Amino acid sequence: MTLHLSLVGIGSGNPDHLTRQAIRALNRADLILLPRKGSAKADLADLRREILAEVLENPATRIAEFDYPTRDAATADYRQRVEDWHDAIAARWVDSIAAHPGATRVALLVWGDPSLYDSTLRIATRLTPRPDIKVIPGITSIQALTAAHAIPLNEIDGPVTITTGRQLRETGFPAGVDTCVVMLDGECSFQSLPPEGIQIWWAGYAGMRLQITDHGLLIDAGPRIIAARAAARAAHGWIMDIYLLRRQGEAQISS
Amino acid sequence: MTLHLSLVGIGSGNPDHLTRQAIRALNRADLILLPRKGSAKADLADLRREILAEVLENPATRIAEFDYPTRDAATADYRQRVEDWHDAIAARWVDSIAAHPGATRVALLVWGDPSLYDSTLRIATRLTPRPDIKVIPGITSIQALTAAHAIPLNEIDGPVTITTGRQLRETGFPAGVDTCVVMLDGECSFQSLPPEGIQIWWAGYAGMRLQITDHGLLIDAGPRIIAARAAARAAHGWIMDIYLLRRQGEAQISS
Repeated sequence: MTLHLSLVGIGSGNPDHLTRQAIRALNRADLILLPRKGSAKADLADLRREILAEVLENPATRIAEFDYPTRDAATADYRQRVEDWHDAIAARWVDSIAAHPGATRVALLVWGDPSLYDSTLRIATRLTPRPDIKVIPGITSIQALTAAHAIPLNEIDGPVTITTGRQLRETGFPAGVDTCVVMLDGECSFQSLPPEGIQIWWAGYAGMRLQITDHGLLIDAGPRIIAARAAARAAHGWIMDIYLLRRQGEAQISS
Repeated sequence: MTLHLSLVGIGSGNPDHLTRQAIRALNRADLILLPRKGSAKADLADLRREILAEVLENPATRIAEFDYPTRDAATADYRQRVEDWHDAIAARWVDSIAAHPGATRVALLVWGDPSLYDSTLRIATRLTPRPDIKVIPGITSIQALTAAHAIPLNEIDGPVTITTGRQLRETGFPAGVDTCVVMLDGECSFQSLPPEGIQIWWAGYAGMRLQITDHGLLIDAGPRIIAARAAARAAHGWIMDIYLLRRQGEAQISS
């Protein structure tokens, strides 16, 4: 029996980000795998349960929760550590599916969109035999960020680079673009840039009920964001944040 | 009376891309402005009507169709031509709203997401007095492309540049990244690159019922895509396409 695996983008923390396509895919599933990622991210598991409670109408759809393995800090190489971790997650999926005989249509809820800084698609291709994989797009935190600030991502005809905190620290403001979006940044890596002439649009918990935002010249807003991020993290036990950096053109600086 | 303007991302051509948030926003509107962009893109106006017919349940919501102005080819400077065009569109909005006294909650359906290579947000900020603007995110054609191919947008921890056909022709493969997505490209601008070591994932009408895809080494797939694009354009009278280019790392080339 072929395993049909639907990777369902659920958007960025607002149950109303769900598309009609996503709702349909969830209701067509025999089994939905729901990861538990430890107490620090309890809010996210809760949000997944809340979404399912709201949109699931098929009584035959079963839900299997499973615990995420942790990354082995003893493995020094970053990419190898990620590879090993993906193998471990794939094994959990296989166990969960095996515990539900007859489940051939399996769905996973993916934060944001399955294409963007998410490992689910890479994990899915590790299963043997290779399942039939269907990707349902979801609203990303980039879109939640630009919607929160009501700003365009790009300048007219302008390119945009999406990057990570690690990359920003290692290589600075991306070459050849005036706009970049930084994701997966636990360290406010904008601090590594010379702040002159850069604007920042920031959101914590973008798209969620907890959403907080700030915007300004990096030199002014940077310290505010560092403080707000630390306070929010202390209050809630976790934080996800994202920001857009834009180099000011000469026209903007002079106006 | 403050004008409340909702820019509603409707996704990339699949009515099921609509989010619950988008459906709610449309049903809350007094007036929905529906552009007609000329017969070549008739399918898109039809799709907007189809979406509204499917999700609109509020009998009080009125729909006002208006014709898009054309860009003045006599204006040589690209950015100036765009600015003038935006002014002309804003004037059409104002006329349409004025024709519906009492309409304070106005919605516009935006292809994809209002943040990405779309002018609606820039046009909205031209209105005086400045309206209260709310952005509802939608699935972009980037996400429709990666979903169609079931591929991740980024490599692990890797940056991605989103750019335009014009930029690709003028500056080549973006610096500092191995992955780029090319939008707004009417000329198969990938032809301007040395094709060696580059893979392409292409989609015409990404996310729509007409969707066609191709994938391969650029040196092989490029000519196929040029032919398929021309044939589809001839058959339907219009085409929108998008593609992802990925430089192959040494490991991928040797494996």
